[in-house]
Amino acid sequence: MSLENISTNKTFGGWHKQYTHTSKSLSCDMRFAIFLPPQSVEQPVPVVYWLSGLTCTDENFMQKAGAFRIAAELGVAIVAPDTSPRGEHVPDDPEGAYDFGLGAGFYLNATQAPWNVNYRMYDYVVSELPELIEAHFPVSNKRSIAGHSMGGHGALTIAMKNPDSYSSVSAFSPICNPVNCPWGQKAFQGYLGNDRELWKDYDATELMKKSPVHIPALVDQGGDDNFLAGQLHPEALEAAANKAGYPLTLRMQDGYDHSYYFIATFIEEHLKFHASYLL
Amino acid sequence: MSLENISTNKTFGGWHKQYTHTSKSLSCDMRFAIFLPPQSVEQPVPVVYWLSGLTCTDENFMQKAGAFRIAAELGVAIVAPDTSPRGEHVPDDPEGAYDFGLGAGFYLNATQAPWNVNYRMYDYVVSELPELIEAHFPVSNKRSIAGHSMGGHGALTIAMKNPDSYSSVSAFSPICNPVNCPWGQKAFQGYLGNDRELWKDYDATELMKKSPVHIPALVDQGGDDNFLAGQLHPEALEAAANKAGYPLTLRMQDGYDHSYYFIATFIEEHLKFHASYLL
Repeated sequence: MSLENISTNKTFGGWHKQYTHTSKSLSCDMRFAIFLPPQSVEQPVPVVYWLSGLTCTDENFMQKAGAFRIAAELGVAIVAPDTSPRGEHVPDDPEGAYDFGLGAGFYLNATQAPWNVNYRMYDYVVSELPELIEAHFPVSNKRSIAGHSMGGHGALTIAMKNPDSYSSVSAFSPICNPVNCPWGQKAFQGYLGNDRELWKDYDATELMKKSPVHIPALVDQGGDDNFLAGQLHPEALEAAANKAGYPLTLRMQDGYDHSYYFIATFIEEHLKFHASYLL
Repeated sequence: MSLENISTNKTFGGWHKQYTHTSKSLSCDMRFAIFLPPQSVEQPVPVVYWLSGLTCTDENFMQKAGAFRIAAELGVAIVAPDTSPRGEHVPDDPEGAYDFGLGAGFYLNATQAPWNVNYRMYDYVVSELPELIEAHFPVSNKRSIAGHSMGGHGALTIAMKNPDSYSSVSAFSPICNPVNCPWGQKAFQGYLGNDRELWKDYDATELMKKSPVHIPALVDQGGDDNFLAGQLHPEALEAAANKAGYPLTLRMQDGYDHSYYFIATFIEEHLKFHASYLL
């Protein structure tokens, strides 16, 4: 697989870089970004994968989270993929909705036409991207995974389904129980069809009920998040964790909203949480 | 003067807020952003004014600089105005160029029609905005000023022309000698006319040669900045400072470019520099 470097910025003694490549999982060209800390010059460093939310690309987290200072201090790389397949030939929501199609891949493998050709973000994030990263960059095979909103859903479900691949998982404002919220129901019906039993395989709360292997999980949720009541349902995840004895730390953060101003506030604690298992 | 609050985000225990108001200096409606640190609940805090570069609004610095963590720790407010007057009735570059007109006010008072009606960012930043901020927010009258590129030019020239109003000044990648670079020459000819002697009143290098009062100044310049050779001329500013005995610290930062990834890396040092004179 060949990578094309399209930007490089020195930052905090390390480097933020963007690349494009042709994805075999997604049958389209994809862009991702990587932050390499200064320590990567000397030795392979572990990687935190960051999955962004609806409408985002690789750029939102890298520009707005303020994560590089602490990642450079800890010696951790960060990889941020896009949130869906992209391109002229990739089908999109017929009405251009922000919560389905482009920018809204939901980190699953679609089974329904026409989505099943390109919308395979689960395979991309779980297999293709880490293989690419570990083949081309000075990183180890130690990985953690984190994300925001739709990407928090992605991080939690991918970690629980692949506990041997990740040392820890964290999320900001995740969609915790998508089978029971409008964003999740619309996406799962479109990508996976009408059989609701199949949806549960991509639902963090359902997976937590029966997860055979437990990896440490940290979730921060803003108390003033506009989407909290209607879409996110952290109480369902917490109830499942309590019942299963899952090592979940769920923190309600009073007064914070759904934005990157919230993420920036607590990203240092999330990266230190991951580093404590990665290093 | 009335202010309309259009957004509020809690961040690092403080608040990022955006406001709109009708500006008498600029004869248009303007938007600005303010970060209020948690300490502002207890007592008035000093303010660092941030002036952004070409094409920016109040949002670029607030979203990308990663400045709130350290501002919250130090107890310093940050105010970020827009970079030009705005609105349907405000004239713009006839070809829509990025370096003149909207988004490119150059922090001066235009004398040439049609620009002289609205393009009075110097008055706005020096007088109207601080009066507004100090009347409506829990801040003291202790001020410093900083900026990037065109905004670095603005910060340096405004500080040198108003040394009683600012405790310190800093800049990232400033346009140091606009009378001798394409960006400056285009802007000054358009806004100020053909008499080059008048341009010198808005040129940091020229002002530094004869500045009667010296306030501490810190400048960071990326060594791999695409605009360094053609537009920025820090060597002219440094020569003027050396000749005048001006307390300028100019640092070349090897490998860094013109982006906010550079600013984010060193903003902590700039805010600590300002705090050492403000607190």
